[in-house]
Amino acid sequence: MNHKEIIKLLIQELTLEEKAGLCSGLNFWHTKPIERLGIPSIMVTDGPHGLRKQKSSGDHLGLFDSVPATCFPSAAGLAGSWDRALINKVGIALGEECQAEDVAVLLGPGANIKRSPLCGRNFEYFSEDPYLSSELSASHIDGVQSQGVGTSLKHFAANNQEHRRMSTDAVIDERTLREIYLASFEGAVKKAQPWTVMCSYNQVNGEFASENKTLLTDILKTQWGHQGFVVSDWGAVNERALALEAGMELEMPSSNGEGDKKIVEAVKNGSLSEQVLNDAVERLLTIILRSVDEKKENATYDKEAHHALARQVASESMVLLKNEDDILPLKKEGEIAVLGAFAKHSRYQGGGSSHVNPTKLDSVFEEMEKLAGNADIHYGEGYKLDSDDIDDQLISEAKDLAIQSDVAVVFAGLPDRYESEGYDRTHLHIPANHRRLIEAVSEVQPNVIVVLSNGAPIEMPWLENVEGLLEVYLGGQALGGAVADVLFGNVNPSGKLAETFPQKLSHNPSHLNFPGEGDKVEYKEGIFVGYRYYDTKEIEPLFPFGYGLSYTTFDYTAISVDKKELTDAETVDVHVTVKNTGKVAGKEVVQLYVRDVNPSVIRPAKELKSFEKVALEPGEETTVTFTLDKRSFAYYNVQLKDWHVETGAFEILVGKSSHDILLSEKVKVESTVSLPVSFSRTSTMGDIMAHPHAGPVLQEALAEINKDSPMMGEGEGEQSEMMAAMMKYMPLRTLVSFNESFTEEMLANLLKKLNDSVSN
Amino acid sequence: MNHKEIIKLLIQELTLEEKAGLCSGLNFWHTKPIERLGIPSIMVTDGPHGLRKQKSSGDHLGLFDSVPATCFPSAAGLAGSWDRALINKVGIALGEECQAEDVAVLLGPGANIKRSPLCGRNFEYFSEDPYLSSELSASHIDGVQSQGVGTSLKHFAANNQEHRRMSTDAVIDERTLREIYLASFEGAVKKAQPWTVMCSYNQVNGEFASENKTLLTDILKTQWGHQGFVVSDWGAVNERALALEAGMELEMPSSNGEGDKKIVEAVKNGSLSEQVLNDAVERLLTIILRSVDEKKENATYDKEAHHALARQVASESMVLLKNEDDILPLKKEGEIAVLGAFAKHSRYQGGGSSHVNPTKLDSVFEEMEKLAGNADIHYGEGYKLDSDDIDDQLISEAKDLAIQSDVAVVFAGLPDRYESEGYDRTHLHIPANHRRLIEAVSEVQPNVIVVLSNGAPIEMPWLENVEGLLEVYLGGQALGGAVADVLFGNVNPSGKLAETFPQKLSHNPSHLNFPGEGDKVEYKEGIFVGYRYYDTKEIEPLFPFGYGLSYTTFDYTAISVDKKELTDAETVDVHVTVKNTGKVAGKEVVQLYVRDVNPSVIRPAKELKSFEKVALEPGEETTVTFTLDKRSFAYYNVQLKDWHVETGAFEILVGKSSHDILLSEKVKVESTVSLPVSFSRTSTMGDIMAHPHAGPVLQEALAEINKDSPMMGEGEGEQSEMMAAMMKYMPLRTLVSFNESFTEEMLANLLKKLNDSVSN
Repeated sequence: MNHKEIIKLLIQELTLEEKAGLCSGLNFWHTKPIERLGIPSIMVTDGPHGLRKQKSSGDHLGLFDSVPATCFPSAAGLAGSWDRALINKVGIALGEECQAEDVAVLLGPGANIKRSPLCGRNFEYFSEDPYLSSELSASHIDGVQSQGVGTSLKHFAANNQEHRRMSTDAVIDERTLREIYLASFEGAVKKAQPWTVMCSYNQVNGEFASENKTLLTDILKTQWGHQGFVVSDWGAVNERALALEAGMELEMPSSNGEGDKKIVEAVKNGSLSEQVLNDAVERLLTIILRSVDEKKENATYDKEAHHALARQVASESMVLLKNEDDILPLKKEGEIAVLGAFAKHSRYQGGGSSHVNPTKLDSVFEEMEKLAGNADIHYGEGYKLDSDDIDDQLISEAKDLAIQSDVAVVFAGLPDRYESEGYDRTHLHIPANHRRLIEAVSEVQPNVIVVLSNGAPIEMPWLENVEGLLEVYLGGQALGGAVADVLFGNVNPSGKLAETFPQKLSHNPSHLNFPGEGDKVEYKEGIFVGYRYYDTKEIEPLFPFGYGLSYTTFDYTAISVDKKELTDAETVDVHVTVKNTGKVAGKEVVQLYVRDVNPSVIRPAKELKSFEKVALEPGEETTVTFTLDKRSFAYYNVQLKDWHVETGAFEILVGKSSHDILLSEKVKVESTVSLPVSFSRTSTMGDIMAHPHAGPVLQEALAEINKDSPMMGEGEGEQSEMMAAMMKYMPLRTLVSFNESFTEEMLANLLKKLNDSVSN
Repeated sequence: MNHKEIIKLLIQELTLEEKAGLCSGLNFWHTKPIERLGIPSIMVTDGPHGLRKQKSSGDHLGLFDSVPATCFPSAAGLAGSWDRALINKVGIALGEECQAEDVAVLLGPGANIKRSPLCGRNFEYFSEDPYLSSELSASHIDGVQSQGVGTSLKHFAANNQEHRRMSTDAVIDERTLREIYLASFEGAVKKAQPWTVMCSYNQVNGEFASENKTLLTDILKTQWGHQGFVVSDWGAVNERALALEAGMELEMPSSNGEGDKKIVEAVKNGSLSEQVLNDAVERLLTIILRSVDEKKENATYDKEAHHALARQVASESMVLLKNEDDILPLKKEGEIAVLGAFAKHSRYQGGGSSHVNPTKLDSVFEEMEKLAGNADIHYGEGYKLDSDDIDDQLISEAKDLAIQSDVAVVFAGLPDRYESEGYDRTHLHIPANHRRLIEAVSEVQPNVIVVLSNGAPIEMPWLENVEGLLEVYLGGQALGGAVADVLFGNVNPSGKLAETFPQKLSHNPSHLNFPGEGDKVEYKEGIFVGYRYYDTKEIEPLFPFGYGLSYTTFDYTAISVDKKELTDAETVDVHVTVKNTGKVAGKEVVQLYVRDVNPSVIRPAKELKSFEKVALEPGEETTVTFTLDKRSFAYYNVQLKDWHVETGAFEILVGKSSHDILLSEKVKVESTVSLPVSFSRTSTMGDIMAHPHAGPVLQEALAEINKDSPMMGEGEGEQSEMMAAMMKYMPLRTLVSFNESFTEEMLANLLKKLNDSVSN
């Protein structure tokens, strides 16, 4: 018997109570076993950039005391790599650790969009761009699941802030939801089929995500074809029976039987169909049995190899933001001041459910010492870790060290208390003592490099004072070695920003509506999230989306397309040649954006539609090929309830960042779908005139009317221009108001003729 | 018998058909007479900054060929004066001209808010700020109506673009509608009771303004107490019976009997109550009889006096935007180059229904010659009026003149074809030949002054190249003399911008949603219109709201309030001392803004709540007193459906512009209204804890629960901070999920206790 058949039989055997019981956890981390039928319990555990398997004696919110595991860079860092293959490798490593620890499902990755840099959990998410986020999520999922371990794509959906996350209602128009917030999940689900999807705490357009049938069933299961089950974020279930009906199969953690009871009652009183419960159990058992099948007994993993991978990943994720006069890489000679407590006590991961107990932890300072060659390295604490207060003694010591050195590397950023699951930031400042350290050192030393550890953008009023800036994000347990690798040039940095760094918080698109009023947050910026906003509003960011420097240079030398005209049922290939024109090997993220040249609907200035990371030796060149399809040109049309391409010209823009477009090409795309048209008494003359069939009908009718009573009066020159403009916007019904001989009856007849002409 | 009694009798006498007939025009400009009952026809005519009485042979859209009348500056210009008394004088003059021309109702003023600088009709509107707009509208109405002539406050409501104005649906949330778009009308209606209000063409939230009962009856008549009648914008009626039911009494122009027929049918088939028709006729007859009463036989007006007033008004409305090195006023000696065809053929008014046939028309050049004293004035055409093309010959001549002169005054701006009723602009550029003239002249002459004639903001990439900049707006028929007065210092400029000039179009708050998609425009920027947006988003404008220079200087030397704490039922007086510290007499617009220091709802950085224009001789000082009331501190609360003040601190900011705040004071306002509270299973712990009565009840319950099962686990330091933050946002229902011994029943009991505590 295959699983499908076994599950059918099991469902017949299970009592109503047992079936309801399968729909919630046994405890914080396990599903319920049913021993009499041989149904096992499986374990799920927090992720996503490292395993957080809590020991049995954990607290009641399930937060602390977990077994050691490799802590990889958090998603904000990983995303900087723009490297599908690399993130896939991380996924594989995570899957191995799960097998070794008997974990069936790792709770991640997080595909929420970075709407505001303030969101306390941004470090766990990939990007402000849904395409990039979905691609990287899919790579992560593929990696983990290749090891026979499930994932849980989270937090579905629109969980874009921690502020009041368990009660707030995210009010988002349908198009924005589809194009931005859902698209990030859509690609990952369709490409990688995560075993589970985790529904979020918040409400979406008035319904809790856990009770939102549109999201969980209509969109996720039916339209996207998700085969696994939905698990609630821990405590996200409001009314259990409603949630099951909506498509939320597994309540976590155990609600101590309260949820199960409600399901049983609902089936008994007829408000919930038992078929819904059976379907849920079928989805649950499918994954549970699969997990048992794919379980590798006595699995282990190589801790050192995983640590080395964590180091490689961290070094390829960092983003070099500034490098005046090639101050980096550092020379392996002379005196180097290493300043700031972060150099010895790195901020390498974020707080909350993703917090990992690392297998080991590199010190930046020690790793720098190892790679420094003939250079002397001097450490100054600069600030106390646990306080924002400026310590004048430490500042003074740091200045002295800086004066005595050839170059100063200042480590700064956001301490744990500044960002975490559970709450949002309210500003983009770093602690006053970090800022003071940077400013004090740059007063006395012209060669200052700042290395930032933080999970999300900060404001940098001191940027002009420093020569070098390396954004490390939260780099995981091996960030020490990775930072040393990049600073000394053992690794050429190749990361690019997966989010915009704004000049100031107020420039962020959500600023006027974040975090909302009471339990309602309106996404009034709509589709204009991240660079879609900054580009369209022409607001200069501090660093644009896609930006990042290298120790080498790349030339973009040619662009070509395999066709100049296509329909939306066809694809077009775009070829671009990229060459390493510098002196060291390096990797480049080639980015492709699309712009609708003359849209009739509101569209951003450009949107990322493809990217590729290539490795090139000095002098080497390669041709990158991108394939664009309907989705690359489409917007979500709420009338059609589908993606739609407007016939017309599109620009294909290829470059090093969203601001640094080096090549472009134009194609014409023809839609194979026409939007339904019908005219009413309030349709404008201009719209009717523009229609190929209805236009001539109206033209003829107007000629008839004008015979007795010329509408256009005696206006001439500019006057008649204005009158023509006015006419264009006049509704058809004004023929009655402005013509003595035109009656309502004649209007009705004309309208019929017009609509007949359209349906022909 | 008084009017009321006469009207009652008339309504009894009138047939159904006659009553319906009174509800639409006789023709383009007159109401229907009913001779058998002695009901006269009255004439209404376009305004608002000059009479546009069309001769009988006019075209069918009623646009051309009107009798001469004084053309005052258009509203965009008038608003620059920030002078209630001055605008009142203009109103009086307009009323006199109406009496002389037998016009009963002047169709204006326009109180629409300048949402986007692109709106083709912005020149007819006052401001981006509802308070300023309503104050100036009220002054205008008071002036006209003091002469026994009615006004028509237009276009009610949300007619903020010309693009698809007859069909588009303005989708605006309730609070924004109330605080911004309606508030501009509200103040004018309540203060000045315009005889009529004109409903706009567009839809508002899905209903045509002409059929919008919420707007026309509930808000305008019931809540604001409007006593007059509503007239349709010309052709704005869609379904006549629905419009009457909604409170739209007079359809204009005549629909050739079609509208009347529909009313009669609707009454006969019972879909429209005859009482609604009677009420409409009562409102119509009230105004018609009043108009007859107040008619002044053989009235005339003094054309020269009105022209002189037009000159005074224009000179006090202009805004001096730049005056480096005191380049203005011009010396009455040396050589002055006057460049640009606008110097001889001014753009002095806008196109469309407000277009006036002026009684006379000053030439800037001739008026400058009259006031020039010993200076020699040389004219260069610079560009052709009817084209955007750069004429190299004219440019070259202009440069030659500039080189030979001590100073060059360049006249530029927007030609008629750039802005008009009927269509919107799509960019903020001036014609290429105007721009070239400015740039070419400033290449050869360091002393360049630009004088701008335009109805709305433009971009100024050349601003850095010029020393002086005078914004004249559309200054009316006497702008020639007024410009000369200001340039030569006979009048000290005192205008301030009633709108923000952005650095570029994309910075405008409506940019992402203007002019909408098809027939829908969503006001997603909400209450953040004009400076409310620029200030809150910290986007630097080219020139901020309220900005304007003078030939003298003013010091703001003291601020005081008559109380530091008040309830929202009280008022507070604010006193400010202003002194003219320069060498010439001048007028200053003292502006008062209010900021809610710590609002729980979304509020702008500051809002204009009062202003006063004062005239001061050199060395003179005066104390200005402002009185603030509830409305000065309130926002519109959609739950209460009323204005509401949040208890807390408010800053009172007084200054020369929205960006140049010189004095501030803090007051605490206590609300006398409390918002209704009730808790549910999804209310957060934090919200309940914060309530003075419910908090202790929850505290006690939690203590009981924690006895057996401590929620907070063993987290310490930062960990427990995070857990505390998480707890705050947890809904009450999670007590069940996270505690083995807490049941749904216990939750229900607790909830009852909490709500009981609140209602006590």
